[in-house]
Amino acid sequence: MDQDNGPAAGAVDEFSLIADLFAPLTRGDPAARGLCDDAAFLPARPGWDTVLTVDAMVAGVHFLADDPPDLIARKLLRVNLSDLAAKGAAPVGALLAAAFPRDVTPDWLRAFAAGLGRDLAAFDLPLLGGDTVATPGPLTLSLTALGRVPAGQGLERRGARPGDELWVSGSIGDGALGLRAARGQLPALAAADVAFLADRYRLPQPRVALGPLLRGRAGAAMDISDGLVQDLGHLCRVSGVGARVEAARVPLSPPARRALAGGMVTLADLLCGGDDYELLFAAPAGAVAALAAAGDPPLTRIGTIVAGAGVSVVDQQGVTLPLTRGGWRHFRAAP
Amino acid sequence: MDQDNGPAAGAVDEFSLIADLFAPLTRGDPAARGLCDDAAFLPARPGWDTVLTVDAMVAGVHFLADDPPDLIARKLLRVNLSDLAAKGAAPVGALLAAAFPRDVTPDWLRAFAAGLGRDLAAFDLPLLGGDTVATPGPLTLSLTALGRVPAGQGLERRGARPGDELWVSGSIGDGALGLRAARGQLPALAAADVAFLADRYRLPQPRVALGPLLRGRAGAAMDISDGLVQDLGHLCRVSGVGARVEAARVPLSPPARRALAGGMVTLADLLCGGDDYELLFAAPAGAVAALAAAGDPPLTRIGTIVAGAGVSVVDQQGVTLPLTRGGWRHFRAAP
Repeated sequence: MDQDNGPAAGAVDEFSLIADLFAPLTRGDPAARGLCDDAAFLPARPGWDTVLTVDAMVAGVHFLADDPPDLIARKLLRVNLSDLAAKGAAPVGALLAAAFPRDVTPDWLRAFAAGLGRDLAAFDLPLLGGDTVATPGPLTLSLTALGRVPAGQGLERRGARPGDELWVSGSIGDGALGLRAARGQLPALAAADVAFLADRYRLPQPRVALGPLLRGRAGAAMDISDGLVQDLGHLCRVSGVGARVEAARVPLSPPARRALAGGMVTLADLLCGGDDYELLFAAPAGAVAALAAAGDPPLTRIGTIVAGAGVSVVDQQGVTLPLTRGGWRHFRAAP
Repeated sequence: MDQDNGPAAGAVDEFSLIADLFAPLTRGDPAARGLCDDAAFLPARPGWDTVLTVDAMVAGVHFLADDPPDLIARKLLRVNLSDLAAKGAAPVGALLAAAFPRDVTPDWLRAFAAGLGRDLAAFDLPLLGGDTVATPGPLTLSLTALGRVPAGQGLERRGARPGDELWVSGSIGDGALGLRAARGQLPALAAADVAFLADRYRLPQPRVALGPLLRGRAGAAMDISDGLVQDLGHLCRVSGVGARVEAARVPLSPPARRALAGGMVTLADLLCGGDDYELLFAAPAGAVAALAAAGDPPLTRIGTIVAGAGVSVVDQQGVTLPLTRGGWRHFRAAP
């Protein structure tokens, strides 16, 4: 764990704080060196590839600034574990880079570290290192997650072939609805549904058990973070294929179905909304039938990979549905 | 490379931008998968440990918001390479997490990517992956750097022993003076000195060649980012030793000597200022004599590791100098 320079202010000493709050999160892994150093030393595992992924999150953009700190930490870890799962990788550990607002309180930091520690323990992972700095801006976090796959067996976005079946885990659209639920924008929905959806937004369930099971079965995989349609578009583009999604097959949770039936959301919103953190994958016919039959997690075939390019979403009559937006595209600059 | 969700605005499409600007920075390394995916796959190198370090930087805290974007990118990489060098590690690659302000211009991004690309090429490294998001706050960057050392041979902060010689590379105090130079706060200094010091602040020279040479010679090592006295304090604390620094031995650059002679800075400021990115290491008597004699980079013995605890800095008469501050301690929160 490292700490960069910057003006001192206030009363809590960061070095003590890190020692107290974050060092236990190494969970005794010798690679972390107890966070006494500013680097981790990971022994080679011959026959395995190390998988590396990083995700950044900003308060007010990727989570609500007043979200509970433990949930922010847990979501940060989980979105990265979702990336690893999409590669077929088993997680190994994480490094945290955190820019904390200067007015953050010790209680907030304690809750943040406790949440991170809770999920590291739940997924049996060490914190391997990190860096904490102060920022005059919003809380800004990034986490680098490490995983491993047998050499050459990692799943990628490329690799989908025409004729492949297109599958998703879990249910689609809950994340985007959940953001609205968390913001109190779904007053007509029952409280239990609001709570379910908000939880789906705040605390994704990374498919860590499913990911490794897809190795040797799926030809291409990714996790759905920016919306089904947009992410499928990425997968198709790098695979050099197109996809046809049957809208009626896309699995929706009961609360999402009720929101849709109540006119609170459009199907396009659900298909293009972000933050689902389910796995999307393409597999040759029959390759995942046994996995799907096992039903844990639920897997649903939503369409087919086709020759060509682009994603089309069709209704039960085969008519292409207009999508009002292609999922979030969040970073655009002025010309 | 990954991109998270957030509201779309403006005219530059991030996905095209990333493809255009960052994909070439992979420099053809297959581990990066051309940034088509959101993860890198690094083959195992049996017999080597992977060294991982992460550093975060925030505009207005770790660099000036109007610093040239290419220099910001290069400093971000270099401070991490400095960490790897301190471990005795050879660098392998980097992952970038960047939160760009929404009003960043394409020209700024191009210059940033060009600077990063320039230094990746200079150090012969690939960009392995990353994540770019938008922020309503200041530019916030973190970079995870990967290196490798022969198994078990990595250098750490712990490992200094009483009687060890204490050494530093290069010159000390230029970074802190350089910040003042860059801010125009050294008007009495000659323009060439101001330029030298500002460059030392903006563009550290990580000791990538020296680091691996210290393996098997130094018992403990770290890079000086928070100030010599404070960083030496860390090294002593985790090693369970103390240190005695002879102030007159501490190497100062000619511009720093002139600033000191002109009363523009105190010796305490130089010994406690941050951003030097030189290596500090403890080694048994004679162990680095040949390296030091080679003189590239310059190595200077500044003192001795002693039994006990704490860092004392003494003048030529052996009198302990009072230090007005123990180096930057940047992150403190209100109680």
